[in-house]
Amino acid sequence: MNFNVNSARNITLVMDFYELTMSYNYFKQGKKDEIVYFDMFYRKNPDDGGVVIAAGVQQLIEAIQNMHFSDGDIDYLRGLGVFDEAFFDYLRNFKFTGSIWAVPEGTPVFPYEPLVTVKAPIIEAQMIETFLLVTINHQSLIATKTRRIVQEAKGRPVMEFGARRAQGYDAATYGARAAYIGGAAGTATVSAGKIFNIPVLGTMAHSFVQSFDNEYDAFKAYAEIYPDNCILLVDTYDTLKSGVPNAIEVAEQVLEPMGKRLAGIRIDSGDIAYLTKKARAMLDVAGLTDCKISISNSLDEYLIRSVLEQGAQIDSFGVGENMITSKSAPVFGGVYKMAAVERDGKIIPKIKISENTEKITNPGYKKVYRLIEKETNKAIADLITFADEIIDPDDDLTIYSQLDKWLNKTLPAGEFKFYELQKEVFKDGKCVYPEFTLDEIREYKKKQEELLWDEVFRLEYPHKYYVDLSRKLIDYKLKMLEEKRG
Amino acid sequence: MNFNVNSARNITLVMDFYELTMSYNYFKQGKKDEIVYFDMFYRKNPDDGGVVIAAGVQQLIEAIQNMHFSDGDIDYLRGLGVFDEAFFDYLRNFKFTGSIWAVPEGTPVFPYEPLVTVKAPIIEAQMIETFLLVTINHQSLIATKTRRIVQEAKGRPVMEFGARRAQGYDAATYGARAAYIGGAAGTATVSAGKIFNIPVLGTMAHSFVQSFDNEYDAFKAYAEIYPDNCILLVDTYDTLKSGVPNAIEVAEQVLEPMGKRLAGIRIDSGDIAYLTKKARAMLDVAGLTDCKISISNSLDEYLIRSVLEQGAQIDSFGVGENMITSKSAPVFGGVYKMAAVERDGKIIPKIKISENTEKITNPGYKKVYRLIEKETNKAIADLITFADEIIDPDDDLTIYSQLDKWLNKTLPAGEFKFYELQKEVFKDGKCVYPEFTLDEIREYKKKQEELLWDEVFRLEYPHKYYVDLSRKLIDYKLKMLEEKRG
Repeated sequence: MNFNVNSARNITLVMDFYELTMSYNYFKQGKKDEIVYFDMFYRKNPDDGGVVIAAGVQQLIEAIQNMHFSDGDIDYLRGLGVFDEAFFDYLRNFKFTGSIWAVPEGTPVFPYEPLVTVKAPIIEAQMIETFLLVTINHQSLIATKTRRIVQEAKGRPVMEFGARRAQGYDAATYGARAAYIGGAAGTATVSAGKIFNIPVLGTMAHSFVQSFDNEYDAFKAYAEIYPDNCILLVDTYDTLKSGVPNAIEVAEQVLEPMGKRLAGIRIDSGDIAYLTKKARAMLDVAGLTDCKISISNSLDEYLIRSVLEQGAQIDSFGVGENMITSKSAPVFGGVYKMAAVERDGKIIPKIKISENTEKITNPGYKKVYRLIEKETNKAIADLITFADEIIDPDDDLTIYSQLDKWLNKTLPAGEFKFYELQKEVFKDGKCVYPEFTLDEIREYKKKQEELLWDEVFRLEYPHKYYVDLSRKLIDYKLKMLEEKRG
Repeated sequence: MNFNVNSARNITLVMDFYELTMSYNYFKQGKKDEIVYFDMFYRKNPDDGGVVIAAGVQQLIEAIQNMHFSDGDIDYLRGLGVFDEAFFDYLRNFKFTGSIWAVPEGTPVFPYEPLVTVKAPIIEAQMIETFLLVTINHQSLIATKTRRIVQEAKGRPVMEFGARRAQGYDAATYGARAAYIGGAAGTATVSAGKIFNIPVLGTMAHSFVQSFDNEYDAFKAYAEIYPDNCILLVDTYDTLKSGVPNAIEVAEQVLEPMGKRLAGIRIDSGDIAYLTKKARAMLDVAGLTDCKISISNSLDEYLIRSVLEQGAQIDSFGVGENMITSKSAPVFGGVYKMAAVERDGKIIPKIKISENTEKITNPGYKKVYRLIEKETNKAIADLITFADEIIDPDDDLTIYSQLDKWLNKTLPAGEFKFYELQKEVFKDGKCVYPEFTLDEIREYKKKQEELLWDEVFRLEYPHKYYVDLSRKLIDYKLKMLEEKRG
């Protein structure tokens, strides 16, 4: 298994070719070492939700640490006939020397705030762009989707079961990691279990049942080998007429004599509300009140909410394609935009203008803060400032909407506290960030979520959380817009 | 780069845990070597389309050839406390010994016909399930989506530009491979270019333009380094007021003195129809009639069709997230179902029954044929038969709908020809299938598509192509259904 990029995998060339054509240009123009600032942010929550769960920072770190161009890579690039040998010498010795700040994995984040900020020589900042985006976009997407699904399961465990429908091997493996961050109870994907120490679960497929002469024999064979955790798939032929009765018979004839109980049944098709209620009644009548019912049939957050509202008798869920691909919103649109350049040690903010106002960027080297109301200990808004601004909690603080200065709000002095959202991850090329376990990340996520009002997490029409700008930043931005447009 | 699983990557553990719990059970029950037959097929074309382009067979082959459990894998499994040492000894020496037939990559295929058929000891057939599905599902999905997009570009090149929005590194790399099979002209993803010899393309991002003091300087710098293939991104500030005029100026002041021409401009935002018409006119007036216009702004098959209908002046397209994730239909629902078991050398067909009739499987070890009308040289239908059936082209041939025997059609003797869709890929554990280049696969795809009526490829309400059963197969299936239900 070479999934751990630390040990064996170099994903440097998961790179858009334009990173190289630009880099070569910077190299030839003698401007490759100009220091620049880039922000990675996104513009819209997937599924019209109220929040995103940031994820993927650990894999970004590993990708950067392992970044190098092999001889084979350089041979390939040479064959393209676009670059010269001096550039290949540079690539051969490439090492990321910049600094990176990132929002910790598990943090609830919002549109337009920088999840990752990069300060680096322009050639380096450019060359990490593509895999930075792939990594954060993918894992944040799946963590966010999983959070929605888990929320609607209302405390019942939700297992990630989607490998076979994932968009490739990494999507299955890192997707399971992200799902676990998002709140899944475990995964069916063994690679993810191994690499990330995620609980794995799995019992049997229909083929197992089919491979025996009849369903009873299949269940019996399974119970004999796994008496301590016997979960039987009951819908191969007919859930209520065959599957559940056979499961009950095996509980009585095979497990009971061993002093064991039937742990559960799984239903993978049919009308969930109807079947689970009937199955529950049948199990209860047979005295199997402790036998759990697990469901796994093209579930998503809406279907889970619906069947529970209908009184379906479900103890746990297995969710496949809708989680592992975030099927209803399979793209997380994170972008990576230049925010500033340094000239003679001075930071010069840069802006990207667009006819679509939502595509206009926030200029400058910036920091993001979460503002917390002291009285409720709940977040009021996030605030983006220039990096050198200082927030004084003993002063009133006025914060401004991204584009409309008249949309603003003043927090009275003394009534709020704040903390910086991003942590330093790389400092001058060296990783300065600890590796957290996934369970630590889940714990952090839980604490961060408690700072937000429940209304932010609503599936439909969630409360819009504000990401505002400081006075200095909005003034500078509006001035730049006027200059460029005027 | 370890993307080539041939050399370095072992994806064995991209496996649902239930493959192992079942396998262990087979192992303990002494039935692991029972020969079984599995079919991989799907039930519904993505995007309500008429056809799927099969892809991924080469990666499936490599995954099987590299399949093994490392010491680390076994240590991990031991730690789960579920299996015994005898099983680990078996895993340590695991080798796939079965036979596999698969539809060649690039073949247009249809719901319910086996794209892959596996004959193997049950424990082996089970353990390859997950990665077989991931591989074929993912690549077939992207090849199919790309075919739709390329079709609507009506001969204009379509580049795959989606790495940053892909669901992980493999999705970027293998997705680009699948897109190239589906008809993309090339990719921006360097890893895919290197590994699969796909043409790569890329020029500059907005950040390149921003990194200079003004747009003209950026364009000039680019033109000086790439005079032979100078494509300029013109929408960083204002496409028509700044970008195109600056591009024209660079064409005249930088390129012309070198005896070079401006190769193209790229527009990445705004109203495509309007901007391209205006830009085309400006370029033409400046004598740059040979300068190409390239577009890359959240395109999909419908938007491409629409802007071309509006008379947009476009020479090529770059397509990102909508292609690399198949955003509108991001799941290819291929399944892997047991079709038969062997007992005492006899093949016993198996069926999976479901309350959803479309989930009922076709029993038995089978073959699939494409039937061609001699007069038109166009495909009439695909036909699934038991593997030992013989089609006699000198006899009338009656073919039957999947479930309704009264829905049938008779092809007159002598008026049709046929060929088998699947090729043998593994024979008793040995790969017997050549490795084709992607260009060979594209050529094969083109020839196979010519056998189908255009109406099958329509985006909306495509002609439904028939996948029918032989008399013997429908009779057997209906008999099994009656027995199981009765």
